[in-house]
Amino acid sequence: MTTPAHRPTGLRIAPSALALAGEGRVFDLSSGWWPGMPLAPGHPPFQVLTFRTPAGERAQGPHGDLEWLGDNTSRFGFISELLSFCAHSGTHIDALAHITSGENDEWYGGYSAHEYLGDHGPLTHDASTLPPLLGRGVLVDAPGALGLETLRARQHIDEDLISLTLDKQGVALREGDVVLLRTGTMKHWPDTRAMTAVEGAGLDLDGARLLARYRPAAVGSDTAAVEVAPSGVAGEPQPVHRLLIRDLGIPLMEWVHLEELAAAAVHEFLLLCLPLPITGATGSPVRPVAIA
Amino acid sequence: MTTPAHRPTGLRIAPSALALAGEGRVFDLSSGWWPGMPLAPGHPPFQVLTFRTPAGERAQGPHGDLEWLGDNTSRFGFISELLSFCAHSGTHIDALAHITSGENDEWYGGYSAHEYLGDHGPLTHDASTLPPLLGRGVLVDAPGALGLETLRARQHIDEDLISLTLDKQGVALREGDVVLLRTGTMKHWPDTRAMTAVEGAGLDLDGARLLARYRPAAVGSDTAAVEVAPSGVAGEPQPVHRLLIRDLGIPLMEWVHLEELAAAAVHEFLLLCLPLPITGATGSPVRPVAIA
Amino acid sequence: MTTPAHRPTGLRIAPSALALAGEGRVFDLSSGWWPGMPLAPGHPPFQVLTFRTPAGERAQGPHGDLEWLGDNTSRFGFISELLSFCAHSGTHIDALAHITSGENDEWYGGYSAHEYLGDHGPLTHDASTLPPLLGRGVLVDAPGALGLETLRARQHIDEDLISLTLDKQGVALREGDVVLLRTGTMKHWPDTRAMTAVEGAGLDLDGARLLARYRPAAVGSDTAAVEVAPSGVAGEPQPVHRLLIRDLGIPLMEWVHLEELAAAAVHEFLLLCLPLPITGATGSPVRPVAIA
Amino acid sequence: MTTPAHRPTGLRIAPSALALAGEGRVFDLSSGWWPGMPLAPGHPPFQVLTFRTPAGERAQGPHGDLEWLGDNTSRFGFISELLSFCAHSGTHIDALAHITSGENDEWYGGYSAHEYLGDHGPLTHDASTLPPLLGRGVLVDAPGALGLETLRARQHIDEDLISLTLDKQGVALREGDVVLLRTGTMKHWPDTRAMTAVEGAGLDLDGARLLARYRPAAVGSDTAAVEVAPSGVAGEPQPVHRLLIRDLGIPLMEWVHLEELAAAAVHEFLLLCLPLPITGATGSPVRPVAIA
Repeated sequence: MTTPAHRPTGLRIAPSALALAGEGRVFDLSSGWWPGMPLAPGHPPFQVLTFRTPAGERAQGPHGDLEWLGDNTSRFGFISELLSFCAHSGTHIDALAHITSGENDEWYGGYSAHEYLGDHGPLTHDASTLPPLLGRGVLVDAPGALGLETLRARQHIDEDLISLTLDKQGVALREGDVVLLRTGTMKHWPDTRAMTAVEGAGLDLDGARLLARYRPAAVGSDTAAVEVAPSGVAGEPQPVHRLLIRDLGIPLMEWVHLEELAAAAVHEFLLLCLPLPITGATGSPVRPVAIA
Repeated sequence: MTTPAHRPTGLRIAPSALALAGEGRVFDLSSGWWPGMPLAPGHPPFQVLTFRTPAGERAQGPHGDLEWLGDNTSRFGFISELLSFCAHSGTHIDALAHITSGENDEWYGGYSAHEYLGDHGPLTHDASTLPPLLGRGVLVDAPGALGLETLRARQHIDEDLISLTLDKQGVALREGDVVLLRTGTMKHWPDTRAMTAVEGAGLDLDGARLLARYRPAAVGSDTAAVEVAPSGVAGEPQPVHRLLIRDLGIPLMEWVHLEELAAAAVHEFLLLCLPLPITGATGSPVRPVAIA
Repeated sequence: MTTPAHRPTGLRIAPSALALAGEGRVFDLSSGWWPGMPLAPGHPPFQVLTFRTPAGERAQGPHGDLEWLGDNTSRFGFISELLSFCAHSGTHIDALAHITSGENDEWYGGYSAHEYLGDHGPLTHDASTLPPLLGRGVLVDAPGALGLETLRARQHIDEDLISLTLDKQGVALREGDVVLLRTGTMKHWPDTRAMTAVEGAGLDLDGARLLARYRPAAVGSDTAAVEVAPSGVAGEPQPVHRLLIRDLGIPLMEWVHLEELAAAAVHEFLLLCLPLPITGATGSPVRPVAIA
Repeated sequence: MTTPAHRPTGLRIAPSALALAGEGRVFDLSSGWWPGMPLAPGHPPFQVLTFRTPAGERAQGPHGDLEWLGDNTSRFGFISELLSFCAHSGTHIDALAHITSGENDEWYGGYSAHEYLGDHGPLTHDASTLPPLLGRGVLVDAPGALGLETLRARQHIDEDLISLTLDKQGVALREGDVVLLRTGTMKHWPDTRAMTAVEGAGLDLDGARLLARYRPAAVGSDTAAVEVAPSGVAGEPQPVHRLLIRDLGIPLMEWVHLEELAAAAVHEFLLLCLPLPITGATGSPVRPVAIA
């Protein structure tokens, strides 16, 4: 197998985006990752296992794949781990092959899972095609605009709430933005019991259509699924996923930690997000940072 | 278990670093990741397995952890994967607990593996403590300075070669730099047979001491181990790892793809690297980018 | 690596054991295994993932490790899975390296984990040394003797209860027996809530000493740990494990399904148990059968 | 999820089968299992990772899933592992859902993978339906009959060779037998280079038809695939798998170690094989034993 040609060519970061870095304060928007962390339903557990250990290396001796430890009177050792998890664990971005619908189970671009899904992941639009995101980020702090700590469970982030929030913030969306919608869920992270107070709050289909008109580089939120649940759309468990990822090719970002940005009332910033271009993965864990 | 307090506070990116972004050209320094990719010896295979599939979801039906698929006449489906790999696969940064030596198998800070290594990874200095790296990056293009395509197998990057290269490049190291040493190995990536022509080329102990005087934020290279092999130091298979990571707390970055930077003769740049703060991991895969 | 010499030589099954087969009725003593099955605390989840699929094989095409599918107009396909679990899941037998105690963390035979535990399991007394068990089995149906459906939570199977039960059953223990102690826990299998009614019932240290005098080939029970919990022995969470496995080299069998044997009042039988000799494993899942 | 009803009812072992136990000599027919063992192409690696360790348990402390270690002045510890492998590793038996063919990717009984294959394995005819095999076993020692050490690479075990061998052995097949075909491959086990001398030798389609007339309980061999490769049948990479498993519901056993049986010239015996009834698995590793 040859290496996938994942490296984007001709990618540039705009001077206007760099100018957003302002005072250079760095906000870490990631969830952290650890064994037993909360996950959206349907995913395998997040596991970290100690793999190599100094004592184990000595017990096995300097042969086979440890031959290079050869002359080792200094008792040099190394520790490694086996990670076992799904790309949709913690803060992550979805690749465009993540979502299918219709008779032929097609993802973005009309690729059918019947023909293009291998046993090691999708053959097109996998994480290896996710470019670095280096541009303008906008926080849509809905509970902030409403004077709430968090949204209510199952509250819709609809056209009106987005418009009202942007107005209050005095920020307008532009093409290519990374739009981050806050529900306040991560205020309770990782207390799954407390998080149920905000459960299901998120973007609805009309809100998604509004955002799509600006052709954002990505849309994210501080929840497991970005979108409101239940969806309120008959026959469609996740119509926002279907519209943004599958129909329009706009990646979603989930479990984005927005509490510190909101507390600092930073609504516009330089957003840096560097997905791992893993062939066959349907997304990538990321540690986005906002700079302002 | 509570979430680890991985989010750094008070982190800033310096205006002088931002100024390095120049024309805003983005260079992707990552290796890519895929099942069967080349790895340093001693690591588990890099595996990507299709986990969820539209047909599998239908076969299992909307119950258990798929209950939320409920009303689904649109045949909405999602694809996910199980990733199984070690943090030291492809382009990555080492956490400080990665390397031990001495009678008590101690890592940086004097933590003994006998007391601080759990079954889910080290309890201190794991990847959850790795901050974002957002600052000045310097390429030390040793073969470029020597007029070579690549270094020779087992060639030392020593004090002299570093000094000569920096002189030719007209670049001086400063405190806090991310220093990236090029051997040319990635010119052949991922052709393991061709890569043997450069095998073992890397930083030697004297070269590492020189770099350490500048207190770099990290030292990286385009090889599996950064350092020269064999080490030439009796009883120490990896003295550069021991010195930089274990003694001095300077992370190493490995398998960094430097070919495009070298081809463009970019020796100084804004370096962005966002390690995943995974509790228990001894490093993180990263997709560093250089901007210039 | 060469194959381990796991095949026992000179092993015979005694005519007296074969004679126990009686009418030839076969009782399956296994728990079954499935994703999400109940496990003793401290173990990784039991996972089954679809690995190869007919559609995935077609999508990837007949190259690499699927090259042999070559000419395939018949649409031949195969399905496989990735299993990921611990040997101590469901019905299983412990290898003698499973249990350590004391200053040097030694298992049976005085092997210290500090020296003999590699990163791929113990180097001695692992599952590769477990012989087939083909001989006399004895059921000690304690609740049956007491006229109960099951024992009570935390009830001790002590010397007296063992003696009383064997007396009522009219069965005497002999050297080399596989002794199976019933608490009735599996009557509720796999309903973990219902199983709490019997939780912690099991063999105590005096009872284990009694059994050890007969030098059994193995001791098993229908619980996660065979032994009573809490142990009632200060400083020793599992003194029966320590005595039988570590000190005396007698394997334990756990989660053995004894309900059908008990219902049929079969107390003596031909026991067949065929552990998988996996190098580095600390036990093996097994499907023991009783024949009577 | 409730436990699968895997336990067979009314299963009996015939007196005539027990009578085959003869002198009670036990022959272990298993391959052994270890990290890095040889595998048929297309399968994931066989991995054993140390999971729990006495030092790791102390480092993590007696809380969470180790809470039960509580009062532990005796330094009680336990070692466990994570096993990660495919059921088709080493000696194993195939479940009937393992093989599909035709337009709808159907396995035995006409179940289509499009409808009955979940993300955790097939929903019918998985390993949970494999009964214990306890009956007459017959060795067909083809190289023995031909006076050879092993068959040649790609040599067909066809109708004639089976008949000739059975004649020389003076053994007739009967309904319900487990028929084990020897090529001699395991004489070289696990030396993959040496095994190439016998590579591809195996049962051909006519030979399979002959065996099928006797309605065997299972057909096994000492190779990765039982059947001859290449198959010699246009458009069908594995017609013997298709015929026996998919069309007729006769399981195959692979990598069966037959060298000791052959050396002892034991051609008829009591065969004991106890597959693990794992829900969703497409087969089970087994340690069959022959008794004679």
